[in-house]
Amino acid sequence: MNYNKNAVGREIPEYLDGIGQLNPFIGVNKTEVNKNKAGSKIRVGKTGDEKLVSSIKEAIEKSGLSDGMTISFHHHLRNGDYVLNMVLDVIAEMGIKDLTLAPSSLSSIHDHIIPYIRSGVVSAIQSSGLRGQLGEEISKGILKKPAIIRSHGGRARAIEDGELHIDVAFLAAPSCDNMGNMNGRFGKSACGSLGYAMVDAQYADCVIAVTDNLVAYPNIPASIGQMYVDYVVEVDAIGDPSGIVSGSIRFNDNPRDLLIAQNAIKAIKASGLYKEGFTFQTGAAGSTLAVAKLLREDMKKDNIHASMALGGITGYMVNMLEEGLINGLFDTQSFDLDAVRSIRENEKHFEISASAYANPNSPSPAVNNLDIVLLGALEVDTDFNVNVMTRSDGVINQAVGGHQDTAPAAKLSLILAPLVRARNPIVLDKVTTVCTPGEAVDVICTDYGIAVNPKRSDLIEKFKSSGLELKTINELKEIAENLTGIPDTIEFSDEIVAILEYRDGTIIDTVRKLKENN
Amino acid sequence: MNYNKNAVGREIPEYLDGIGQLNPFIGVNKTEVNKNKAGSKIRVGKTGDEKLVSSIKEAIEKSGLSDGMTISFHHHLRNGDYVLNMVLDVIAEMGIKDLTLAPSSLSSIHDHIIPYIRSGVVSAIQSSGLRGQLGEEISKGILKKPAIIRSHGGRARAIEDGELHIDVAFLAAPSCDNMGNMNGRFGKSACGSLGYAMVDAQYADCVIAVTDNLVAYPNIPASIGQMYVDYVVEVDAIGDPSGIVSGSIRFNDNPRDLLIAQNAIKAIKASGLYKEGFTFQTGAAGSTLAVAKLLREDMKKDNIHASMALGGITGYMVNMLEEGLINGLFDTQSFDLDAVRSIRENEKHFEISASAYANPNSPSPAVNNLDIVLLGALEVDTDFNVNVMTRSDGVINQAVGGHQDTAPAAKLSLILAPLVRARNPIVLDKVTTVCTPGEAVDVICTDYGIAVNPKRSDLIEKFKSSGLELKTINELKEIAENLTGIPDTIEFSDEIVAILEYRDGTIIDTVRKLKENN
Repeated sequence: MNYNKNAVGREIPEYLDGIGQLNPFIGVNKTEVNKNKAGSKIRVGKTGDEKLVSSIKEAIEKSGLSDGMTISFHHHLRNGDYVLNMVLDVIAEMGIKDLTLAPSSLSSIHDHIIPYIRSGVVSAIQSSGLRGQLGEEISKGILKKPAIIRSHGGRARAIEDGELHIDVAFLAAPSCDNMGNMNGRFGKSACGSLGYAMVDAQYADCVIAVTDNLVAYPNIPASIGQMYVDYVVEVDAIGDPSGIVSGSIRFNDNPRDLLIAQNAIKAIKASGLYKEGFTFQTGAAGSTLAVAKLLREDMKKDNIHASMALGGITGYMVNMLEEGLINGLFDTQSFDLDAVRSIRENEKHFEISASAYANPNSPSPAVNNLDIVLLGALEVDTDFNVNVMTRSDGVINQAVGGHQDTAPAAKLSLILAPLVRARNPIVLDKVTTVCTPGEAVDVICTDYGIAVNPKRSDLIEKFKSSGLELKTINELKEIAENLTGIPDTIEFSDEIVAILEYRDGTIIDTVRKLKENN
Repeated sequence: MNYNKNAVGREIPEYLDGIGQLNPFIGVNKTEVNKNKAGSKIRVGKTGDEKLVSSIKEAIEKSGLSDGMTISFHHHLRNGDYVLNMVLDVIAEMGIKDLTLAPSSLSSIHDHIIPYIRSGVVSAIQSSGLRGQLGEEISKGILKKPAIIRSHGGRARAIEDGELHIDVAFLAAPSCDNMGNMNGRFGKSACGSLGYAMVDAQYADCVIAVTDNLVAYPNIPASIGQMYVDYVVEVDAIGDPSGIVSGSIRFNDNPRDLLIAQNAIKAIKASGLYKEGFTFQTGAAGSTLAVAKLLREDMKKDNIHASMALGGITGYMVNMLEEGLINGLFDTQSFDLDAVRSIRENEKHFEISASAYANPNSPSPAVNNLDIVLLGALEVDTDFNVNVMTRSDGVINQAVGGHQDTAPAAKLSLILAPLVRARNPIVLDKVTTVCTPGEAVDVICTDYGIAVNPKRSDLIEKFKSSGLELKTINELKEIAENLTGIPDTIEFSDEIVAILEYRDGTIIDTVRKLKENN
């Protein structure tokens, strides 16, 4: 096998069975594109066509799904999703094989499909992430073809550019009418935004809505309209509400996370970007959530308003919108019940597709308007590369999500992470897997200090003149190693179990099968 | 030149200079399609890209517009639109030539561009209609290539299928931010729905927003989002408010229109389709407007509710929505200030694209859900073919609009027309131009009686058993001729000045140049 070293120093094979030629990552904003978007198969509907079918099986039969095709799902129902498992059960029973499974992401609940990988129903997976037992098994090499991991924006790009062609999309619809007008705002399985599903609906050759809440025609407002939907199936339940959205997501007052968040707030203020009309995205976990809480308090105190906030939306963002601290929210994914209520009630809480959110091959995805993004990390290395997908033992158990999309697009990308997690150092010489290139990462905020990417000399200057105490990334690494010792090297085999695309479609890293003795 | 007779008996040339091969119309729902949709040119925007440019000229320069390309506009500003004329002024000054002008429709205000046709700036026009002096001049043959006339659904189809490729779309935006997030709901030039523009935004290679109301980012809700827009230009005025939308459009109590409308109401009731949950579309002129008024009164009295109403929306529809007589409105075009207010305030008044409205090459455009549509006519012939575009003297001065889309899609299509208009008979042996094929037309309601298409024997039976007095179409023709005499035959030359597509892209008729002595 011939390899090419990519721009983050990883050796990328020229060619991979089951995938084809691979283009190595050449750097942020370097890939040039000279082609047109793809288009779905044209279907000619007639007046009186009945879309409502009696079962998932009937919908699949009518869709023409056959061996070797690609099917998609969206992950707005998260770990409460029943639809993917239900559909795969039926497909397996029908004897259809060799499918590519291309959901927007996967959760532990989808461990259910492991037997279908073993039996050859599913031979390829393309997803933002792989969790639980499924991640472990794929890391052990059970999948016939290497998995392809893409960011949310990268997936939208791949679909719209024709690299990921979806034959049949199965869309879990919390509220749907008999023509397929659907939204995620109502019903026992309400999940808020249907942002990921919007792209599938537009580009798949056949679209099947699966709902547990069939409502009167017309179901308005429709996040996805009847013009995109071929069949509608009613089932008892598309998901488990407790796994779909939690109640209000609130910061849990973990003191370490608070410390990290306080460092992040200092960095934000010192950057000069914290001012009237600024824009930001925070995450929904630990310290990034704490930043949302702290930022809200400071914005009130300082009488500063954000024009726009973005991303997976939580109650903190909703509070800020309702208090007039943010003018408008763009929402591709609603993280809690507050967000679901808000997107239903408030037109300034605006649902957008994953493409509108982060597709790099667009005149301007919303991420391009970000001043500040706050992101997490499993590992960071001394080149500022970030891993958000594989554990320190090399097993895939998380997702790339919008990390890779927002970090390069935002004017200031801050990675928030504890320096040590479960006795593992977070700052390393080399991350296990590069998900986001160091080139796109500006600042690392830990509980032991802040390090700024040396290429951002402008920021270093600003931070220093604000009296902010900085560490170098090597200093952070040394502190970590002093606390934990130098971690053992993980041994991998040569076999590639997954490739990780950069958002532009080039390959930023690969994931190798663990050696048996690990 | 070789000709093929099409399914409505018109002789269609096999080939036409400036157009190419022509496929004759073969009947309603007969064309099969086996291809994929088209896609716009992929543009890769970067963070910090500035979309706001200082002038229309700068936007055109940046768009790369050059000789021979296709430009588009939308007609939501109707006869108040300044944008098309402004842009053509700049293009002419820049010396760009041989353009195809492909707006969703044209109004009298666009007579302004006649000199640009003569000077070769514009060599082709594709539009739903041609009015005023422009229609007259094109009927006289001033355009280099024959004009192509398409319905609203046909235009969406042609764009999405790649037959009408738009190089640069100029979108008049009544409310827009610096990234191109736009809607038609606010500002001095508010027009309501931007349904036609949505298709152009999605499929054009370059999209330029022209606004007279630049608002703070983010402009939410955005009918067209920033992901589609390349440049934004601010101008003093995009239109004349008095020409954009009128106040409340109300039926003017013309007794002849009332009589026709009363006949239509009888037919609707006798059809069996007037029942709880029915759907309908009415127009915004004369007797079809009177039907909206009468229907509203009857629905209240009969305690019958419509699930959905469609089309160009007027105050009557808004009233019905607000009174709970209609559950939801789909709006591609807002006809009066009541409609503009309603689409801004009421989420059950839902904005949809022209494609969602009527694109036949879709799993289900909204027109496929119509029970009843009420349409006008300039002429009807004894085969029930309808002309809505050319005057009895053969000059193009109207538009096809959604006539051709709704008539075949609705379960009951009613044509409302006076039997005689300005001393011309409306029911004829042969219409001047076939816009909608008789096959798609069910009932003709006139002030002298009702005729049902013989192919709808089911309807004839229902109408008779309801005691409705029917006339044959030939009887209507005779009554008309007794009132007016037999009209003179218009003489045309062989030269074709326009071709008229059926919504599926086949050619239903051509328009020929008038002979000099007419």
